[in-house]
Amino acid sequence: MPPFTRRPSLSVAALGEEGLIAAIRRWLGPASPPSPAGIGDDCAVLPRARRRQLLTVDPVVYGRHFDASVPPAAVGAKLLKRNLSDIAAMGGRPVAAVVALTLDRRVRRDWLEKFYRGLAAEARRHGVAVVGGDVAEGPGVLAASLTLLGAVDGPRAVTRAGARSGDWIYVTGVLGGSIRSGHHHDFEPRLAEGAWLARRPAVRAMMDVSDGLAKDLRALTPRGSRPALEADLVPRRPGASLGSALGEGEDYELVFALAARTNRPAFERAWRGAFPRVRLTRIGQFVPAGRLPAGALDPGAYTGYEHLRKR
Amino acid sequence: MPPFTRRPSLSVAALGEEGLIAAIRRWLGPASPPSPAGIGDDCAVLPRARRRQLLTVDPVVYGRHFDASVPPAAVGAKLLKRNLSDIAAMGGRPVAAVVALTLDRRVRRDWLEKFYRGLAAEARRHGVAVVGGDVAEGPGVLAASLTLLGAVDGPRAVTRAGARSGDWIYVTGVLGGSIRSGHHHDFEPRLAEGAWLARRPAVRAMMDVSDGLAKDLRALTPRGSRPALEADLVPRRPGASLGSALGEGEDYELVFALAARTNRPAFERAWRGAFPRVRLTRIGQFVPAGRLPAGALDPGAYTGYEHLRKR
Repeated sequence: MPPFTRRPSLSVAALGEEGLIAAIRRWLGPASPPSPAGIGDDCAVLPRARRRQLLTVDPVVYGRHFDASVPPAAVGAKLLKRNLSDIAAMGGRPVAAVVALTLDRRVRRDWLEKFYRGLAAEARRHGVAVVGGDVAEGPGVLAASLTLLGAVDGPRAVTRAGARSGDWIYVTGVLGGSIRSGHHHDFEPRLAEGAWLARRPAVRAMMDVSDGLAKDLRALTPRGSRPALEADLVPRRPGASLGSALGEGEDYELVFALAARTNRPAFERAWRGAFPRVRLTRIGQFVPAGRLPAGALDPGAYTGYEHLRKR
Repeated sequence: MPPFTRRPSLSVAALGEEGLIAAIRRWLGPASPPSPAGIGDDCAVLPRARRRQLLTVDPVVYGRHFDASVPPAAVGAKLLKRNLSDIAAMGGRPVAAVVALTLDRRVRRDWLEKFYRGLAAEARRHGVAVVGGDVAEGPGVLAASLTLLGAVDGPRAVTRAGARSGDWIYVTGVLGGSIRSGHHHDFEPRLAEGAWLARRPAVRAMMDVSDGLAKDLRALTPRGSRPALEADLVPRRPGASLGSALGEGEDYELVFALAARTNRPAFERAWRGAFPRVRLTRIGQFVPAGRLPAGALDPGAYTGYEHLRKR
């Protein structure tokens, strides 16, 4: 569904600001708690937090993260899921969200309704309260950014730092072909998996794969080391090339470093017991920078999605 | 300074994404704590919160909240201050922020540097840590939305609900002429004042004036009541008309309801002791809907700033 219309009667402008905000609350339904815990005051008031907290923000921008071919409900769901994937990558649990919407007055009302209903359905599924937001006009724009507050239930949040040379590199699911297959909006954030991994001290560092494994792995690689990947082991979506699996991005899978001395068969068995339907693959190992084995894949040749790529 | 340039060498595109993110961390300086408490991981990790929390989001959009005439450092400061004003209106204290930036690749690097340095200076002044963010490309766009997490130090957060018929209506500072005078980016968020008011149970409801007093007062007005304002009492910025004071908006002052039976002289004396340089004015009273006194101003005639105004 194209998000813009030339017919003013079908546009959000026909609602006016107060009408639009009232409609958003209606569209969010039970995902939107009553004020002051939700929309309607200068701030949302949240309970005290007995555990460490997580905070992240990610947008969806028309022309960059979605186009007219993506159903609006899937765009709304994707906006939340991109952030859920970041919470998953720390081993956390999502709690509350605010949404800042910037839109042209010609945006279709029914597009926006489906967008918010899609967001709300996903929010309810994950117990996320949409507690506030903002609506601003921006000529020619349709963009929303969602800030997600989360909690660390276990003993720690897993950061990107902590991997050591010798650690094994694992990835969940399959990579590549995300745009073509619709995975970029259909994906399931790895929340349960992330929380499970965070409870295992052998998992030393973790992140989600959003810009492509080759680029994202850089952030996980310990100083003085390099990732030695085995090309044949990289799990690919059917039909996806190795280049797509390493560089296309929008996979929203977890990649993590497992301590070198871990009993891998036992670890993999425990995983299969917990997540029988989610593939887990060892794809390589961090090695000292000068000792890349012959035949090891050089992820440096695959850059991953570079925002504001130099041309 | 115009934010866009046609010379690629002066633009953010010349930095590339990683260069831009590194530059943003540099520009934020001490306002940006080290990861994982700050920028650099999937989420920022924040300490547990022993008090109730506040969450709010507000953007600045080029063409709506600022133009080329506003210095970029003032735009950055304004982005934070708009959110600080919301925290002030609850009587809270700001804690941590994330910033989502959507920008055209032709945005000038030096414009963006001044923007972030202005934001950082304001963040340090108020003890706010900028803990994360996102950068996304949006053709023709320059917009940033900031989500601010706050804390309630006192016994309560003051909401917009709670005013009763008979309560006095007070406003801080002066209203009107915000755009012409530069107040819309020069203003000082009323954080100390908001916290002081929140500690007084006689202050029953409070909000900040952002869309214009006439419109904003609606949210404070108890059911079955109307605000009876005295036109001569509305404190105006020199040169500002009554219409501007009631309808222009971007005042970022506090308006609140004071319980009818309060000892007003004592309350006003205490205010002057605490804030000798900040004007406090009683501008009217909430009255039963059918009993508007003769000569009372009808704020309904002044609509205030309406986003997505119907045309």
